[in-house]
Amino acid sequence: MDCLFCEIIAGKISAHFVYEDSTHVAIMDKYPIHRGHTLVMPRAHHEKIIDMTPTHVSELFARILPIVRGVIEATNADGFNIGQNNGRAANQIIPHVHVHVIPRYSQVAVAWPKRRIADDKELEDLAAMIRRCIKST
Amino acid sequence: MDCLFCEIIAGKISAHFVYEDSTHVAIMDKYPIHRGHTLVMPRAHHEKIIDMTPTHVSELFARILPIVRGVIEATNADGFNIGQNNGRAANQIIPHVHVHVIPRYSQVAVAWPKRRIADDKELEDLAAMIRRCIKST
Repeated sequence: MDCLFCEIIAGKISAHFVYEDSTHVAIMDKYPIHRGHTLVMPRAHHEKIIDMTPTHVSELFARILPIVRGVIEATNADGFNIGQNNGRAANQIIPHVHVHVIPRYSQVAVAWPKRRIADDKELEDLAAMIRRCIKST
Repeated sequence: MDCLFCEIIAGKISAHFVYEDSTHVAIMDKYPIHRGHTLVMPRAHHEKIIDMTPTHVSELFARILPIVRGVIEATNADGFNIGQNNGRAANQIIPHVHVHVIPRYSQVAVAWPKRRIADDKELEDLAAMIRRCIKST
């Protein structure tokens, strides 16, 4: 197995999960563009969204709403971007379909520098808050 | 009516449509980040995706696949981004839910400068090509 997200889904590599059901998961992005940056993905491996059926695409995006509400409530963000990249030319790094949910803050400049979070606890604390918020919405 | 996209959908302002059905439309973005930049949206006015029901979100994203395939075939892009912005803090300009389909090209740098296309015909020619490609996929 050489797909990072498949290994995370299989429990072989750790990640900060904020949502899980029988077919989809959501985890914190370890290289967040903004605080609370979350990734939603199907458990099944598809490289690009055009490799999926329309039904599977619908199921993936149907998961977005409760996760977005939880992320926004947890982060008190002023807005959010949804993004999904396909292919190296489009900055897709991990070849397993995933949807970025990126909270945005009015006071933060438009530029999106990535920031590696060194403190694992900071990330897990945020993940826990989002999990709670998703459950309560 | 003060929503640009509602006025376009009502036929009061012109646009380059690449897809239309009873509930959704797709038009060319007049400020494309890359060549072939297309917007997919519901006819019904919702400001943000969290104002929609899960069913409506699923219906919106279910429209993406044939449109993406048409855009990619028409532009011969190497990859594509899907994006959907919510709120001013997230760079949402028009307050009517729309999904960006942005073709990406390996030879083009990562920076995304917007480019206003002055030549209307260039945009319409591309729209026509995408319409044909969507029909044929």
